[in-house]
Amino acid sequence: MPAFRITARDAGSRARTGVISTAHGNIATPAFVPLATKGSVRGVAAAEVAALGYEMVLGNTFHLLLRPGGEVVEHFGGLHRFMGWDGAVISDSGGFQVFSLGHGGVADEIKGRRGGAGEGSIVAIEEEGVRFRSPIDGSQRFISPEISMAVQAQLGSDIVLAFDECTPFHVTREYTASSTERTHRWLERGIRWREEHPGPQSLHYGIVQGGVYEDLRVESTQAVVASGCEGVAIGGSLGADKEQMYEVVGWSTRELERLAPERPRHLLGIGEIDDLIRGVELGIDTFDCAMPTRLARHGTALVADPANRWRLQVDRPRHRLDEEPLAEDCPCPACSAGLSRGYLHHLARSGEQSGGRLLTLHNLTFVAGLMARLRDAVRLGRLADEAERLRS
Amino acid sequence: MPAFRITARDAGSRARTGVISTAHGNIATPAFVPLATKGSVRGVAAAEVAALGYEMVLGNTFHLLLRPGGEVVEHFGGLHRFMGWDGAVISDSGGFQVFSLGHGGVADEIKGRRGGAGEGSIVAIEEEGVRFRSPIDGSQRFISPEISMAVQAQLGSDIVLAFDECTPFHVTREYTASSTERTHRWLERGIRWREEHPGPQSLHYGIVQGGVYEDLRVESTQAVVASGCEGVAIGGSLGADKEQMYEVVGWSTRELERLAPERPRHLLGIGEIDDLIRGVELGIDTFDCAMPTRLARHGTALVADPANRWRLQVDRPRHRLDEEPLAEDCPCPACSAGLSRGYLHHLARSGEQSGGRLLTLHNLTFVAGLMARLRDAVRLGRLADEAERLRS
Repeated sequence: MPAFRITARDAGSRARTGVISTAHGNIATPAFVPLATKGSVRGVAAAEVAALGYEMVLGNTFHLLLRPGGEVVEHFGGLHRFMGWDGAVISDSGGFQVFSLGHGGVADEIKGRRGGAGEGSIVAIEEEGVRFRSPIDGSQRFISPEISMAVQAQLGSDIVLAFDECTPFHVTREYTASSTERTHRWLERGIRWREEHPGPQSLHYGIVQGGVYEDLRVESTQAVVASGCEGVAIGGSLGADKEQMYEVVGWSTRELERLAPERPRHLLGIGEIDDLIRGVELGIDTFDCAMPTRLARHGTALVADPANRWRLQVDRPRHRLDEEPLAEDCPCPACSAGLSRGYLHHLARSGEQSGGRLLTLHNLTFVAGLMARLRDAVRLGRLADEAERLRS
Repeated sequence: MPAFRITARDAGSRARTGVISTAHGNIATPAFVPLATKGSVRGVAAAEVAALGYEMVLGNTFHLLLRPGGEVVEHFGGLHRFMGWDGAVISDSGGFQVFSLGHGGVADEIKGRRGGAGEGSIVAIEEEGVRFRSPIDGSQRFISPEISMAVQAQLGSDIVLAFDECTPFHVTREYTASSTERTHRWLERGIRWREEHPGPQSLHYGIVQGGVYEDLRVESTQAVVASGCEGVAIGGSLGADKEQMYEVVGWSTRELERLAPERPRHLLGIGEIDDLIRGVELGIDTFDCAMPTRLARHGTALVADPANRWRLQVDRPRHRLDEEPLAEDCPCPACSAGLSRGYLHHLARSGEQSGGRLLTLHNLTFVAGLMARLRDAVRLGRLADEAERLRS
């Protein structure tokens, strides 16, 4: 059985529905993947994540390598057993995080957010790999394609991502080109490591880089396809704004449509509501993003309100006496228990973690519902209508 | 129907089982009452608290008065509806917290813990009430027996506590005596307020003070009984160590046994495992305490290990590779999902709030199980054996 099977295609876009088969169950795509960065979806039990309809979570090689260490997770039988998660696991390679330390702000650029990259720093980027200081204890550490693959094997991931350099936006075309080529060489090393260390069934996704340059993106897409990787992830700097991001993503999915339409495609770290809709239209199968859970911890609920970027800032003063639930007919634990915006306002203002948790459950419910609607729409041949309805 | 009905008595101690009837259901006693200080049991949904077997939670007048304000909770139909809790609510009067601001450390003395009382302070203690600065915004506020009663009415509490001065340990006998007398006068004012403001059914508990002086404790117990309050709470400084605390509590329950055995008794802010066992033997019906939930947030699980004060500090290095669950045959979400001490160690070390939440659920499960065993033992006439077994 192939690892990815396309079940329906949209006539008017590159969108498709499919099923990724893993040793830990199937994932109906297009799907959003919640973050379990350090081995836990913040504040939410694994069983609750499953109950919300999610079939895969994302663990983070960089964070788990530093604490508790890949060998500790392996001691407990892998990340699934460690965190009590019966579904599938995709693991980030660590590339994005380690380069965020050095490029200082690459994450901010790419994701449009602010905030520090911790106290760690890059010591040296070499062909062999990257030396960096741990943001936890300042100790010097090293990560390479082989180490990333070894740790992801210790995690027991169902989908492993290639170790790449996440090229930032502010560098030259020349740097982007040479960095992308090194990412391709690192991909080959990762493939070799996996050949030499056969383990349980897992899928290996190469990562497309190439900055905002069409020819580099196309070449990188071709290189990843040529490597024979089972899947393709799109990463790196995706541009200065959303329109450019969609254009950059589209260069890759257009090329993939031509060369390897049957391979699953993951879009790294992108997941605002409009991005999910557009990403599906562009032919993306899976998405991961901190947005729904991070917004929740900061007092913001996702709601069907495109004019406000699908956001309801429940911690705003206007919601102090607001008796409405976050959303009518929402099946999440907060809305179905009849909790008001005013109560969630109070919890957010009081710094009660119950508030962030209830908003997290609501936001993950909202995104799960959105993805289900998009899958249904593709299946029923009415994606354009559904996307229009979702956006207005 | 009386508000409290005794269903069984232990032959060898003052222990009894009973049922407190409220407008929001019955509470089987002896019972532990989890804290929902600011309108939420930290990190745990109201439905989860109920699923653990709890029938009452404690809301805090002081905290809810300051934020969101009693009128806001009333706007939402009371604390039950505000927080989506179908069970009963007992509310602290605010006395303990406001006096903790001024006496600076009374909470620490009484509960044997350390840590600040926030940035608030007492401005003046007068016969009329207490002027203080809010620890939230520094604004000057006032609380009195009438205000405490009014706020507790806004909360819609099923059991309201009298506004008292929580006499600290380091004051003179003379201060303790005059403070206790003022607490009795404040009790009368609270009773009068309730007479003038009849509301939905609720029980009013007077609070016994009197420091560590037997005659003052006995007098205070008599005064509370004479007031006609439906229930009796024991508060204030309970001594320098556990033996003195049990002695002080025993003076009151001995007197209550003589004067008003049929009234329900609450022990304020005490709830370590040995205290719960001993408290039941001393004839206490309900307990509230931050201990099980606070320990959880600090990486400690409650387990059947009296030699270690029933504590398992899962954040200790020795549990890094520990594959055992917190406890065998424990029905809590962490243990029943097969999560290891090593995983909870990792979450605690990583500061992941999922860890504190899972430990909170475990600890509340442990305490609920303990109270159920104590109730069964009283009912079956074998409390002495059961207490012996629990302590060894």
